[in-house]
Amino acid sequence: MLGRTYDSENCSAARALEVVGERWSLLILRDALYRGTTRFADFQRTLGMASNILATRLDGFVSAGLMQTRQYSEHPEHHEYVLTDKGRDLQPVVIALTEWGDRWAAPQGPPVVYEHAGCGGAIHHRLGCSICGDVTSSAGVTVRPGPGFVSR
Amino acid sequence: MLGRTYDSENCSAARALEVVGERWSLLILRDALYRGTTRFADFQRTLGMASNILATRLDGFVSAGLMQTRQYSEHPEHHEYVLTDKGRDLQPVVIALTEWGDRWAAPQGPPVVYEHAGCGGAIHHRLGCSICGDVTSSAGVTVRPGPGFVSR
Repeated sequence: MLGRTYDSENCSAARALEVVGERWSLLILRDALYRGTTRFADFQRTLGMASNILATRLDGFVSAGLMQTRQYSEHPEHHEYVLTDKGRDLQPVVIALTEWGDRWAAPQGPPVVYEHAGCGGAIHHRLGCSICGDVTSSAGVTVRPGPGFVSR
Repeated sequence: MLGRTYDSENCSAARALEVVGERWSLLILRDALYRGTTRFADFQRTLGMASNILATRLDGFVSAGLMQTRQYSEHPEHHEYVLTDKGRDLQPVVIALTEWGDRWAAPQGPPVVYEHAGCGGAIHHRLGCSICGDVTSSAGVTVRPGPGFVSR
């Protein structure tokens, strides 16, 4: 966890990064979301990361409510890490990162393709306007203070 | 830059994180996108981060093609940092993070609201299916190997 690093930030993106902004965090969540990974050894095998960092990230996710532990073996006692709704709700962040990488850092084409489980259609992230539909240009988006704005 | 940390990853999300996954990176981009910040001193003032880290991030963004420098003063010579299309295209990532933070980490309500510049409508990200329209449940998204998949 980045902890209080971004504490002075009046911004939900900063608050999200406090929870998932550390190195490896979003890749662990990606494996949980799309490979269905739940066990420590499986995360470590597919990600190839140091076990102490993996343990810190998974414990952090449990503390932050993104995952919960579930016992799957009594003797010896073993637990796995299961995404909560709060963790699963990070899927759009992973897909938005993936689509950017597909456009700008995948000269061979997308390594993986997201599909709609029901019908096999391609899944894409898009920005929509509540009044006039899809927003196609990033230049068309502005920000204004919301109900949780704190002036300083 | 995370550099080659995620080099073994066959994944566009990992490649995106190589470029924007370091601490502060996405908040710098957020300020560039929504505050129109371009100058070193302005980034430093609003973010309150160490100048050496800010300089490293901005130089990294220029190397990665997310920003380009533009001279705005001759005597003394000063440059500012301007987003490229590649950098501006990270907007959906920032918005996806913001919406997650709004839902899960903003008990007072969203600190800022994204609006469509043309009509004032609220901007939201969503996942769309190319065949059947919007996807409302994250459980409905699966992945399969794409054209750039490398088996190992």
